Amino acid sequence: MQFGSLCTLGHGLGPWLGHGCRSRHSSIISCMSVVRMTHRAMSSKVLNLDTLNPCIKDMEYSVRGPIVIKAVGLEKELKQGVKKPYPSVIRANIGDCHAMGQKPMTFMRQVIALCTYPPLMNDPTFPADAKAKAKRILGACGGNSIGAYSESPGIEIIRQDVAAYIAKRDGGIPANPDQIMLSTGASDGIKAILKLLKQPDGAKKTGIMIPIPQYPLYSATIVEYNMHQVGYFLDEDTNWSLDIGELKRAVDAARKVCEPRALCVINPGNPTGQVLTRENIERTIKFAKEEKLLLMSDEVYQDNIYAPDREFHSFKKVLTEMGGEYANMELASFHSTSKGYMGECGYRGGYCEFVNFDPQVVAMLQKSISAKLCPSISGQVAMDVVAAPPQPGDPSYELFMKEKTHVLDALKMKAQMTVEMLNSLPNMTCNTVQGAMYAFPQITVPEKAIKKAKSEGKAPDFMYAYELLEEKGLCIVPGSGFGQRPGTYHFRMTILPPPERLKEFLERLKVFHIGFLKRYE
Amino acid sequence: MQFGSLCTLGHGLGPWLGHGCRSRHSSIISCMSVVRMTHRAMSSKVLNLDTLNPCIKDMEYSVRGPIVIKAVGLEKELKQGVKKPYPSVIRANIGDCHAMGQKPMTFMRQVIALCTYPPLMNDPTFPADAKAKAKRILGACGGNSIGAYSESPGIEIIRQDVAAYIAKRDGGIPANPDQIMLSTGASDGIKAILKLLKQPDGAKKTGIMIPIPQYPLYSATIVEYNMHQVGYFLDEDTNWSLDIGELKRAVDAARKVCEPRALCVINPGNPTGQVLTRENIERTIKFAKEEKLLLMSDEVYQDNIYAPDREFHSFKKVLTEMGGEYANMELASFHSTSKGYMGECGYRGGYCEFVNFDPQVVAMLQKSISAKLCPSISGQVAMDVVAAPPQPGDPSYELFMKEKTHVLDALKMKAQMTVEMLNSLPNMTCNTVQGAMYAFPQITVPEKAIKKAKSEGKAPDFMYAYELLEEKGLCIVPGSGFGQRPGTYHFRMTILPPPERLKEFLERLKVFHIGFLKRYE
Repeated sequence: MQFGSLCTLGHGLGPWLGHGCRSRHSSIISCMSVVRMTHRAMSSKVLNLDTLNPCIKDMEYSVRGPIVIKAVGLEKELKQGVKKPYPSVIRANIGDCHAMGQKPMTFMRQVIALCTYPPLMNDPTFPADAKAKAKRILGACGGNSIGAYSESPGIEIIRQDVAAYIAKRDGGIPANPDQIMLSTGASDGIKAILKLLKQPDGAKKTGIMIPIPQYPLYSATIVEYNMHQVGYFLDEDTNWSLDIGELKRAVDAARKVCEPRALCVINPGNPTGQVLTRENIERTIKFAKEEKLLLMSDEVYQDNIYAPDREFHSFKKVLTEMGGEYANMELASFHSTSKGYMGECGYRGGYCEFVNFDPQVVAMLQKSISAKLCPSISGQVAMDVVAAPPQPGDPSYELFMKEKTHVLDALKMKAQMTVEMLNSLPNMTCNTVQGAMYAFPQITVPEKAIKKAKSEGKAPDFMYAYELLEEKGLCIVPGSGFGQRPGTYHFRMTILPPPERLKEFLERLKVFHIGFLKRYE
Repeated sequence: MQFGSLCTLGHGLGPWLGHGCRSRHSSIISCMSVVRMTHRAMSSKVLNLDTLNPCIKDMEYSVRGPIVIKAVGLEKELKQGVKKPYPSVIRANIGDCHAMGQKPMTFMRQVIALCTYPPLMNDPTFPADAKAKAKRILGACGGNSIGAYSESPGIEIIRQDVAAYIAKRDGGIPANPDQIMLSTGASDGIKAILKLLKQPDGAKKTGIMIPIPQYPLYSATIVEYNMHQVGYFLDEDTNWSLDIGELKRAVDAARKVCEPRALCVINPGNPTGQVLTRENIERTIKFAKEEKLLLMSDEVYQDNIYAPDREFHSFKKVLTEMGGEYANMELASFHSTSKGYMGECGYRGGYCEFVNFDPQVVAMLQKSISAKLCPSISGQVAMDVVAAPPQPGDPSYELFMKEKTHVLDALKMKAQMTVEMLNSLPNMTCNTVQGAMYAFPQITVPEKAIKKAKSEGKAPDFMYAYELLEEKGLCIVPGSGFGQRPGTYHFRMTILPPPERLKEFLERLKVFHIGFLKRYE
């Protein structure tokens, strides 16, 4: 699809492979009728838009939507020497740390390299603790090779290391390696748990409560599984905390149309950057208990805490310490190698801990993942390094801590710098980025801009993001991709670009924003 | 679950984590009532066996079923010094090459190690071609790191290499990198395509034609997606070829209860080891055309051809060369890093090529995989090495070819040795293993054994496999896990153990088999 004057509705039909919708049309409806006409003409196919699984047709994933595809196109043009009003595209659309220049942790990569190519065990430049860890892991692999399959839930000693990590994190509350499964990133674990909750065809749809704004893996998977999305609005006025009245409103409304079965919480928040207080978590747990909801806590940003007055509390720890009936509640919590200080997205490492699940359901879960065989072993190894990093006295400890601190300190500084700059702009307010990797400012879009966007069948925040990309080469994700209160407009940007680059980003944004306000005054 | 005198029905409820069904019962019905009583007592849970997604409850994946779990238990006991009538368990249940002692390809691991830990670029012991390949791949990664996400269908230059590989394999028929997506093993690609075919709730169920015997990923996924399995029997009398009359019978019968939409073919066959003739493939394509079925060809064993009178023909090549209306048929074909001569199962590398798909469906497919972000980058790198190995004149060429030939020659020899031995036994016949990695012999089980098994609520081949494991420590998969003509009994064994170990396997099997026949005479 050509962007610009052509279809920019974000229906996902055209852009991926340079073919598909190329029509000029001014609303989603006229676009869809173009589409329908086109594939009627192609009806010799078994699969066309009319015969495709409708859930696949309906799902959306904005983090990789049309804006990003446009950005990739612009980058290619710049490379080919096409003149643009900016020297380069700056991407702040996705939490892809290494792509934004963050360096891998040396120890992590040494361990994975040793597991990959064991002759390196004889290389004196590799430290002894990396070698010892690699040896231990290889000893647990079939044929001492990370090319062998593991058990479907992951290598046992790695699950033991993860259990020890969780127990330490939670002040000694024990974790059971048999209640942990390693996964292909956190996404894969989240999808596996959501799948368990699906009601039989013909029954009321499964309701899944998710925050609005949310990370769109949730909305996409809910559509894919033909479940019902039960959005609860986070409270922007209290730095995106969970409001129990709002949770109650959402679940009550939902019970009329679906059977709510799970409550998903993202803490620290994506895209919203809040870190929940312990008290907020306690009230949320009580709510879930009263409403008989299974808890799903997405805690992939647990290492990314920047606000001096906040710390990370895992749902498991809080629920266990609340005791009594709460300590037996079903909870699935998720972690990943992709975020934190390591940012190893490409390894697709992750884990899911399921607490207080019915043992027979656990058996079914295990069975259901067995056909996928196992998550990538190198991703499992990466997860092990996160769970069991070098300890004081180990040869790699100092370098590891230096690298870790460097990344986290820089993120903290960038979180503050970003929020300050955004809040200095007219018609823009941004909550404190207490954690995670994103700012989610609200824009007061002028009426004239809203009208223009609507007349073109676009969301106003999509138009804002699109113009920003075209004019200044900045790539962000419109708030509508995450959900927001009707009539409010936001965008998500990462705080990942290196400091100088982030400064440049914020300067370009400032110029654009002021121009945008003026244009639509 | 304790095995032995306890529940061995393979219902998948108990064994995984050492809790669950521990009851003595003699049929699946009494077992299920025990189960139901147990979880009624636990009804405080949101998720229990009554409220779990019924598709998850129903799915089965025999390759990692109760026999394997029992084998793992026996291995642990042996390790702890428990006396058994055999010194070790020999596993021939799964196509896990490295676990059975096959060595990784040196060049493959060098390239992945270099991508993992780029300081190795300065290591003079790594060959120049490995370094060049690693540099090229890193140059296509965000931030030059395999820790960055790639585009959801995979890194573009790797998809280009895969396209070139396919074109070369198919005698110059071009392949389009935009019609290739890299996947987490072949399984992930197969699941992504099957998902597209799902009919809306309320419509007739989607029918998927699969061979019987089949690789149980298919049956498991069909149940998981609430589709309808349309089994067509392979013809054991003609070395497991596809009989068009049987395909027709199956599809006609199926149309009464579902809407058949796809025909899956596994070539070379798993678990059956046949390599289809070109003529057999042509007739199959004609059948699919007549019946308006999308073709799915699982070609993960394309490098594993042993019969001197057979060669691998890809469905794409045959369909294209047939020309006319056939050349436009929709086909998805699958490959993987897990099999062949490389056997890199743990990297979960793979690809899917979709040929002649409606471009709008391709766009939807791409969108649907975007929420999963991307397959593991190290798996993508492994796929690249398979697609673009060292060429004559490259520093690594000779070693690469030596290692490749060594693996494939050994498999060829073991295929022959296995079949000869199996056919030398009374009450056992085995077709030629023309390709892939498995033998699938038929056992004529004595009536008395059938009666005993049935009285215990077990499949006779399950009982055979179970007794074989208990008495001789040999781990195979009963034919009922793959499907077989009613009243026939088989098992699948891999030909992967090293020659000496395979010999020992076959000797122990011989002694057991003769004893078994005698016992149930």
